[in-house]
Amino acid sequence: MELWAKEYQSEDLVLSYRIKETLHTERSKYQDIAIVDTYQYGRMLLLDSVVQTTEVDEFVYHEMITHVALSAHPNPKKVLVVGGGDGGSIREILKHKSVEQAILVDIDERVVELSKQYLPSISCGFDDPRVTVNIEDGLAYVKRAKNEFDLIIVDSTDPIGPAVGLFAQEFYRDLYAALKEDGMFVAQTEPPWSSKTFLPELHSVLHNIFPIVKLFLANIPTYESGLYSFTICSKKHDPTVIQPGKHVPNAKYYSPEMHKAAFTLPPFVAELVDMK
Amino acid sequence: MELWAKEYQSEDLVLSYRIKETLHTERSKYQDIAIVDTYQYGRMLLLDSVVQTTEVDEFVYHEMITHVALSAHPNPKKVLVVGGGDGGSIREILKHKSVEQAILVDIDERVVELSKQYLPSISCGFDDPRVTVNIEDGLAYVKRAKNEFDLIIVDSTDPIGPAVGLFAQEFYRDLYAALKEDGMFVAQTEPPWSSKTFLPELHSVLHNIFPIVKLFLANIPTYESGLYSFTICSKKHDPTVIQPGKHVPNAKYYSPEMHKAAFTLPPFVAELVDMK
Repeated sequence: MELWAKEYQSEDLVLSYRIKETLHTERSKYQDIAIVDTYQYGRMLLLDSVVQTTEVDEFVYHEMITHVALSAHPNPKKVLVVGGGDGGSIREILKHKSVEQAILVDIDERVVELSKQYLPSISCGFDDPRVTVNIEDGLAYVKRAKNEFDLIIVDSTDPIGPAVGLFAQEFYRDLYAALKEDGMFVAQTEPPWSSKTFLPELHSVLHNIFPIVKLFLANIPTYESGLYSFTICSKKHDPTVIQPGKHVPNAKYYSPEMHKAAFTLPPFVAELVDMK
Repeated sequence: MELWAKEYQSEDLVLSYRIKETLHTERSKYQDIAIVDTYQYGRMLLLDSVVQTTEVDEFVYHEMITHVALSAHPNPKKVLVVGGGDGGSIREILKHKSVEQAILVDIDERVVELSKQYLPSISCGFDDPRVTVNIEDGLAYVKRAKNEFDLIIVDSTDPIGPAVGLFAQEFYRDLYAALKEDGMFVAQTEPPWSSKTFLPELHSVLHNIFPIVKLFLANIPTYESGLYSFTICSKKHDPTVIQPGKHVPNAKYYSPEMHKAAFTLPPFVAELVDMK
C-alpha cells in the first residue's frame, strides 16, 4: 500500500509526499499536530495539515530566520522566539557566542514535546542552559516586555488559526516596545507569489512603526512556490550589513554572500514592498 | 467535478494543479503533449507528463536562460536555441538589439505549432523577421555548425526521453566547436536539491571543455523544489559580469542586481560544483 500526505498549498495546488510511516497524530488544545516520515524530505511536522518543517530542508528556514538578523546586530545578547516550538530557530541562535539568553514562547506545549521526541536533530538546542521555554500566548508575553530584547524572531504558523494575532498592527507596536533601542525583529511573511495583497499591506503597516523595514527571500522546497519571504524591522542598524567579527559555523544555506543576495529582490517582488 | 493535473516530480513527490479545462492532448512522433488551463498558473504545457512552462511563472525561466548570457556577451548577433519550441526564449532574445539572427531548432514541430495556437503570450516572437525555425534534431544541427554562434541556449526537456543526448559529453564538444571564439552556451541543468550526482558529474565534464563554467539559480515554482539551476559555459567573457550598455526592458525577474545574486550559491549548492 502507498501512503501519501497531501498538503493543500492553496485550493488549486496540492503537494503530496509519499510517506514511510505516520509517527504521531493528535488534536492538541490549539491545533491538529501530525508527524510523518516522508521518503523525499525525511520526518515532517504538520500543524492543521500545513507543512511546518522537514528534516531535509529545515536548515534553510532556520538559518535564514536567525542568522541574517544575528549577523546584522552588533551584539545580540537576549533573543526571543515567538512560536518556533520545533526548536530549529533556538538551535541556530545558540551558534552566536554573544547570545546569553534565548527565550522561546510557544502557545502549544505539545509541539515542543513532540519535537523533542520525534525531531531530535531540530529540537537539540532545548537543553542548553541559555535557553528558557515558556508555554504561553506570544501576544501576551510580548505585551508585557518593555525595552528588553535585542532581537525578536516571530517563527509562527501562517496568518490563519492560532497565529492570526501575530500578523496584526497592535502586535507590531508591542514588538517595537519590547525591543531595546537598537533592537530588531524578523518574521516569516509568506511566499511572494501568493501574497500580492498581504505583503504590501504588511509593509505599509510596518513602515509606520519601524524606521527600517526590509524583505529578504530564501528557497524552501516544502513551502508553496519554493520561494519564501522574511521581513526584518530594525530600530537602528541596517539589516543588510553584516557587523564585524560575525561567523556562523556549519551553515548550509546562509553565508555572508547569501546574506547580501537574499535582499536582492526580483522586480516582481520588489514592487510589492516598494512604498514610494 | 474537480479536475486535477498531477505531475510526479519524483516517485515520492507529486504536485497537483486544479484545472479549468484540458485544451489539447496528443501523442506526437516524439512525446506526449498536453496543454491544460490551471487555476493557479494559467495555461500549462506538459511533455511526457512533465510541466514545461506555465503562463504565470514562465517569465522566470525564459528571462534567466537568456538575459544572463546576452548581458554578459559584449555583442551577441547570432543566437541558437536548441529546444525551446514554446518560443519563450526566442521572445526574450529579441529584446536585445544586437541580435540579428535568432535560430530555433526543435525536434518536435507539434510543440511549436501548439504553442503558437494555445500559448500566444509565450510564442509571440516567432513572427519576427530575425527568427528562423528549423524542425530537426538539435544534436545533428549543432554538429554541423562550426565557429558560427555567439550564444547557444539549450532549452531542453529533462535528461530523459528525447533530450538525453543533450546532456552527453559529445554534444558539449560539438557546442564548443559551434561557438565563435568568444561564444557562450547556457543550459537548464535541473534542481540542485535532487541533482547531487548529476551536477557534479556535469560540471566535471564541462570543465574539461570550456575554460569558464558557472552555475546560477532561479526560483521557478512549477519545477521540483522551486529552485532551478542553469549552467553557463564561456570561451572568453566572464558570465557574471554585465557588459556596458545592456538594458533589458520590462523584465519581471531579471535585473542587473539579480544577475549578480543568481551566481551567489548557498553552500550546499556551491559544494556540488566546486571542482577543487
